[in-house]
Amino acid sequence: MERTKFILDEKDMPTRWYNILPDLPEPLPQVLHPGTKQPVTPDDLKPIFPMALIMQEFSPERYIEIPEEVQAIYRTWRPTILHRAHRLEKALDTPAKIFFKYEGTSQAGSHKPNTAVAQAYYNKKEGVKRIATETGAGQWGSALAMGCMFFDIELKVYMVKISYEQKPYRRILIETWGATVVPSPSTDTKAGRDILAQDPECTGSLGLAISEAVEDAATRDDTNYSLGSVLNHVLLHQTIIGEETRKQMEMAGEYPDIIIGCIGGGSNFAGQFLPWIRDKISGEKPDLRIICVEPKAAPTLTKGPYAYDFGDVAGLTPLLKMYTLGHTFIPSPIHAGGLRYHGMAPIICHLYNLGLIEARAEYQIPVFEAGVKFARTEGIITAPEPCHNVKVAIDEALKCKESGESKNILIAHSGHGHFDLAAYDEYLSGRMKDYEFPEDKVKEALTHLPKV
Amino acid sequence: MERTKFILDEKDMPTRWYNILPDLPEPLPQVLHPGTKQPVTPDDLKPIFPMALIMQEFSPERYIEIPEEVQAIYRTWRPTILHRAHRLEKALDTPAKIFFKYEGTSQAGSHKPNTAVAQAYYNKKEGVKRIATETGAGQWGSALAMGCMFFDIELKVYMVKISYEQKPYRRILIETWGATVVPSPSTDTKAGRDILAQDPECTGSLGLAISEAVEDAATRDDTNYSLGSVLNHVLLHQTIIGEETRKQMEMAGEYPDIIIGCIGGGSNFAGQFLPWIRDKISGEKPDLRIICVEPKAAPTLTKGPYAYDFGDVAGLTPLLKMYTLGHTFIPSPIHAGGLRYHGMAPIICHLYNLGLIEARAEYQIPVFEAGVKFARTEGIITAPEPCHNVKVAIDEALKCKESGESKNILIAHSGHGHFDLAAYDEYLSGRMKDYEFPEDKVKEALTHLPKV
Repeated sequence: MERTKFILDEKDMPTRWYNILPDLPEPLPQVLHPGTKQPVTPDDLKPIFPMALIMQEFSPERYIEIPEEVQAIYRTWRPTILHRAHRLEKALDTPAKIFFKYEGTSQAGSHKPNTAVAQAYYNKKEGVKRIATETGAGQWGSALAMGCMFFDIELKVYMVKISYEQKPYRRILIETWGATVVPSPSTDTKAGRDILAQDPECTGSLGLAISEAVEDAATRDDTNYSLGSVLNHVLLHQTIIGEETRKQMEMAGEYPDIIIGCIGGGSNFAGQFLPWIRDKISGEKPDLRIICVEPKAAPTLTKGPYAYDFGDVAGLTPLLKMYTLGHTFIPSPIHAGGLRYHGMAPIICHLYNLGLIEARAEYQIPVFEAGVKFARTEGIITAPEPCHNVKVAIDEALKCKESGESKNILIAHSGHGHFDLAAYDEYLSGRMKDYEFPEDKVKEALTHLPKV
Repeated sequence: MERTKFILDEKDMPTRWYNILPDLPEPLPQVLHPGTKQPVTPDDLKPIFPMALIMQEFSPERYIEIPEEVQAIYRTWRPTILHRAHRLEKALDTPAKIFFKYEGTSQAGSHKPNTAVAQAYYNKKEGVKRIATETGAGQWGSALAMGCMFFDIELKVYMVKISYEQKPYRRILIETWGATVVPSPSTDTKAGRDILAQDPECTGSLGLAISEAVEDAATRDDTNYSLGSVLNHVLLHQTIIGEETRKQMEMAGEYPDIIIGCIGGGSNFAGQFLPWIRDKISGEKPDLRIICVEPKAAPTLTKGPYAYDFGDVAGLTPLLKMYTLGHTFIPSPIHAGGLRYHGMAPIICHLYNLGLIEARAEYQIPVFEAGVKFARTEGIITAPEPCHNVKVAIDEALKCKESGESKNILIAHSGHGHFDLAAYDEYLSGRMKDYEFPEDKVKEALTHLPKV
């Protein structure tokens, strides 16, 4: 019997997150204050984040203990399973071994609860009663609704309007866990009202929803802000994924040659690859390849400049050095809502700039073709975002078929597509459109990059 | 650390299904031919079922080996996890221990693939190229689409029209796995056309969809029929659930006092409780309580007579001795589509008639109240059908609080409600209606019971 799954018992769940900061070959560029353009201090962030998370954002410690209260909730769904995709391999007739670490069995159906639960915990511990956040496809909003439910914190979610309309199920999920959700742009904030005055039909963007949530948190004493990706502490919490996978690949007696993941803000994929890239940085595994996949409709790493930019549309956030399509960029309405962000996690950008990771951009039609292939071999319906990973994994496995190499390909599979079936319907019925790299829109957006 | 989950490795997955037939204290009443009213023979069933399944339907063997090909596919998601509902217990302040065996992590999100995969396998092995089936809420249709995909069999699904319209996601799921789906009543069969002639607005029923699928299979040489519940061999395949749970309760060092499950056709719950009820039949565990929960809108065990009836509306199936609301009964449009069937698995009816199991009927509003309670404690969004189980488990746990008894309550949790969020929306917004026991409709339907 060939193993199909590598299962960790809950007692073997890692108890520490891995922090890449002390292992980076060069330090991360500093984060700048949006007003003064000087490096931000922990005090600057205090109005919207709990101190424990601010400390994690800049921590020099290689490992950070996961609090027992967070572990206890992780154990309601973690450890997640590492699967071997035997049937996909067979269908491709490839000598490659394809593994996928599947986060779709969390109650929210994605990897997002890994940080949602941690963030809710630290806010609760510091006495915060209410949180404001944004959500794109709804994965983050629903995960944080679940996290806040576990710690009895009130939550308001600003949900990108196009997803709010296309994906009512995610909205209901958020409400079932007890949170409040409004479509963004909303009339509840100045940022939202300003955009609606310019364009009443605006379908929203993640950057804009962030502006609304940050404004909500900054203007209310009882409220903190919470971000589901991009920031260092978010990536840190997601490293539970890669730490588990290391143990599971060891059970399989294998080490990955190629690790593939999609990047929107970058947290799921970083959560998988950061615990591995230290072996490449240390020189132990110089040939390890890490491939970031992004949509052609929002090709941040592959087409954007590496520059200081805001995380949100209104320019309220600190300035981050990142590959960016411009903070005013509003991407095409592809189904992978989680990949429509203009920027990218600074840690990922830094590693890309240092040449330690690769990037590739894909069109959505071949991405869904790969998703259907996966569904018709492994059975799992993949969310639009990780369908990107499956596409590139298939490409790499077919290259192995040509070369005869038996590489180990590891897919970071961030979750199921049970809330995204309208997208599969569009693909299967031939109604799906592809979107080109929006060169004009990006060019225009880049003229608004802040001067530093 | 108190354990939250009891996890079996795939190498410890049971390799045999448990067959209750030889352990029944009295033999099951015979199945009758719809024309002759004489006991059916295996030959009578050959036009629509493969011989291996017909043999299982009447098998005197206590254990039946699970073919390695079926085990290999089971291992893509099984064994499933047994959870301890610590947070629900705490919220109820009950001394009871609540366990739930969760089938929601299968690719289809429910327990249905356990038999879908087995049925597809046996059909394939006997050279069948095409299968016709019906589906209510879409759980069975999607599971069989997945099963047929694994064995490369063409599938046509007749889906109860009200679910087809209310639950487009399940339809797309079926299509993503490569099967064809039509709303029932359809114009593709005589049974469907007849009903549409009488009532063009007919929203369908499971019994009617069965008529359509059976007619399709009986009138085409290349096509077999497949049923997702009710029959002995279907319950047999589901016993993998209870067999796993026995091992997991042993890991927990506990034995259940009360096992609770919902019953539509009865397969999920029978799959859980049959491997336990043998201890009650043998006299080893005389106090074990098994509670079947049904909706007030289709109260088969609690309100129906125990009589011979057809499994379908058109009267094409063999006659089964069962509690029934009449094969022409069309139930109210409650959200638990999987519980809207007029009849019940003969094995369950027999055990109920013998006084070995209990039954209880619930209204849907308190059932969803319990579902939201579960979501806001354990995080899991429960499908409308197992929300019935959660309701009764909460009632029993609160009785323990009153009496001070620390009973072990085991919930058969058949799957997630990610496709049923419209129902949660209706509940949360206060738009949900309750439906009384439809006494007049049942009275009328019972006048059509066949004479035996």
